[in-house]
Amino acid sequence: MSRPIITLTTDFGQTDSYVGAMKGVILDICPQARLVDISHGIRPQSLQQAAYVLATAVPYFPRGTVHLVVVDPGVGSARRPVAVQTERATYVAPDNGLLGLVLDQAPARLAIQLTGARYRLPMVSATFHGRDVFAPAAAYLASGIDPGVMGDPVPLSDLVTLPTLRPRPLPGGVWQGEILNVDHFGNLVTNLRLPATDAQHLASAPQFAVVVGGERLAGLSRTFADVEPGELVAYAGSGGYLEIAVREGSAATRLGVDIGDRIRFEMPERTGLSLIRG
Amino acid sequence: MSRPIITLTTDFGQTDSYVGAMKGVILDICPQARLVDISHGIRPQSLQQAAYVLATAVPYFPRGTVHLVVVDPGVGSARRPVAVQTERATYVAPDNGLLGLVLDQAPARLAIQLTGARYRLPMVSATFHGRDVFAPAAAYLASGIDPGVMGDPVPLSDLVTLPTLRPRPLPGGVWQGEILNVDHFGNLVTNLRLPATDAQHLASAPQFAVVVGGERLAGLSRTFADVEPGELVAYAGSGGYLEIAVREGSAATRLGVDIGDRIRFEMPERTGLSLIRG
Amino acid sequence: MSRPIITLTTDFGQTDSYVGAMKGVILDICPQARLVDISHGIRPQSLQQAAYVLATAVPYFPRGTVHLVVVDPGVGSARRPVAVQTERATYVAPDNGLLGLVLDQAPARLAIQLTGARYRLPMVSATFHGRDVFAPAAAYLASGIDPGVMGDPVPLSDLVTLPTLRPRPLPGGVWQGEILNVDHFGNLVTNLRLPATDAQHLASAPQFAVVVGGERLAGLSRTFADVEPGELVAYAGSGGYLEIAVREGSAATRLGVDIGDRIRFEMPERTGLSLIRG
Repeated sequence: MSRPIITLTTDFGQTDSYVGAMKGVILDICPQARLVDISHGIRPQSLQQAAYVLATAVPYFPRGTVHLVVVDPGVGSARRPVAVQTERATYVAPDNGLLGLVLDQAPARLAIQLTGARYRLPMVSATFHGRDVFAPAAAYLASGIDPGVMGDPVPLSDLVTLPTLRPRPLPGGVWQGEILNVDHFGNLVTNLRLPATDAQHLASAPQFAVVVGGERLAGLSRTFADVEPGELVAYAGSGGYLEIAVREGSAATRLGVDIGDRIRFEMPERTGLSLIRG
Repeated sequence: MSRPIITLTTDFGQTDSYVGAMKGVILDICPQARLVDISHGIRPQSLQQAAYVLATAVPYFPRGTVHLVVVDPGVGSARRPVAVQTERATYVAPDNGLLGLVLDQAPARLAIQLTGARYRLPMVSATFHGRDVFAPAAAYLASGIDPGVMGDPVPLSDLVTLPTLRPRPLPGGVWQGEILNVDHFGNLVTNLRLPATDAQHLASAPQFAVVVGGERLAGLSRTFADVEPGELVAYAGSGGYLEIAVREGSAATRLGVDIGDRIRFEMPERTGLSLIRG
Repeated sequence: MSRPIITLTTDFGQTDSYVGAMKGVILDICPQARLVDISHGIRPQSLQQAAYVLATAVPYFPRGTVHLVVVDPGVGSARRPVAVQTERATYVAPDNGLLGLVLDQAPARLAIQLTGARYRLPMVSATFHGRDVFAPAAAYLASGIDPGVMGDPVPLSDLVTLPTLRPRPLPGGVWQGEILNVDHFGNLVTNLRLPATDAQHLASAPQFAVVVGGERLAGLSRTFADVEPGELVAYAGSGGYLEIAVREGSAATRLGVDIGDRIRFEMPERTGLSLIRG
């Protein structure tokens, strides 16, 4: 672990000194760390967007990467700062559910509540735990400190979960979903996980449809290039979730929807999708 | 090549995980790579802006740098992914003309169509070749892999060119140009290449004028500081192209023009400019 | 100094090639440099925002860090490019007052006007000294070049100061302050320096109040979590300055104020604050 990687994901934006201060803290503790920004443009306090952005970046990083995530509606309240380890990665984050999708992909093996005063800055402010608590913890973990010495274990079943990260079954073969992200191009990412193998299965499923923003889209395409410019299309996105796009346009604008809005999936027959786990 | 540099230029924005996933892919293949963002704020699919941004950053990077560029209106279509080498640099990009200006500065010596399956991710998605095709290729090239093994040579004369990257002669000593970029300050960058030596020449050329957005600007200044606040001025910009600015204001707002809009250069006499090569 | 850190703070934005070109210049001169962006989102030419952003990031970086700062209303005019050293850090910046707050925290020990042609690019443009003057200087300093050889000493008392970086006493126990920053969340940062120890003192001071945007806020809270959602609150911010926030909202929008706007502090008794030094 001579050049450990620490990624950063926050809702702090890139105008202020918040991210810079965190990086200073990390490099002071762990000078050999390599810092990689995933996003600082998470909508303020949007846990579902943070969960999605992490889930689609984390799998591509090398084994041993430390992922520092600070999207924290509850700063100063009772939520726990935690370190969570999986087989390949370590996360440092508030325990508020934003790790839900990455832990679906690779289950947690260990969770520690970060209470050890030695692994924080000497003075912890009331409003900036990213700098004072989370950044130092990530730096010590990247330095090779054992998470076990940084606080007390949290039973894995006690980690906070966010029910809205997955579709919920309704009667009649209908699932209630949600929009996890509106990307830079206006494409909608839904919470229906759809890896390539499942997408092939669903494309041939009769009567599959998506209902969102007053429109009903029947069937599944392979890519937005399968429709004409200006047309709506549903397809399995590159991140492994069902997406809705307008080719050469913005689906978010066209449909008037945003992150957190509801969406319905009609799958009247059992489709055998491996990843709907209610 | 112990610490190769890979720069990144995309139209992906910085909110989503697209850039983060590409960086994860690169670091997993080439852990010693140093990643430098040039811009992720290229207007969606603006090839001329990408060409200009590259042309004004690339010359300052050390010999051996790999420049990864993904602005790709044609994802999923027939355009080729290519690696292009010049004397100092290697580019990995879609073959759609966005390398036009950097290859004017330093000619291509080798171009390879990136077809080798070993140098892509195991699964190539329909919509995110930046992560699945271009990022791995850049990482392998930075690792020292010979481009020749990554695919088949492309004749240099077959590389796609964009005619709008250079002014076009009209009758009567007039040239038809285009706005390549509107920068952060609202300055307009035109496609009239104008290195410092040519600028001195042109400043003394009689009757030189620029016509844009309904205004006619006669003569060439050295810098926007040569005019009063609020005034329009044409000068040779720091990137080596003719620029139009409003001192302490936005020329784009003042003239109501944008990237891709037309501009006319009046140069009734032959001015001997070395770099108009129509 | 095997892997020197250079931070970058500018008002160049992240869309153009300005920052990329500076990084190329640095890496060409000092290949071992580690580059850390603090902010490129400083409002164009806002010296007080730059001063604040620096003051709240710099203290967290390791000893020996070089901070490159280019916010420069006077490019091309008579302002000096300088290198300034403190006990822990070296700054490369225009001498226009933006180092005011960091030099309050740790006094300058040496200032050099950067005149040496050997430590600039061979051609210095009229409009982009960030690339041609400041970036090379930072790279040479990070490489271990003695600042003394790069130009002539500037008497420390000659460095430009910005009076608006500190509150100014008015009659009757009132101080005239200013808004240094509006952060990503709409919180207002004032120029009343208020470290945690002073904040405790002030919280118990009778009759302390802040007057801004037509509202009068009496008393000091510990954090915005001490009030109900939607309420205004004054507290000692994580950067060590008095801040005004709306919990789960934007104080800037609510009060209709912005960077540079005035604010009044009512402290009828001497409060013993250590850091108001007029």
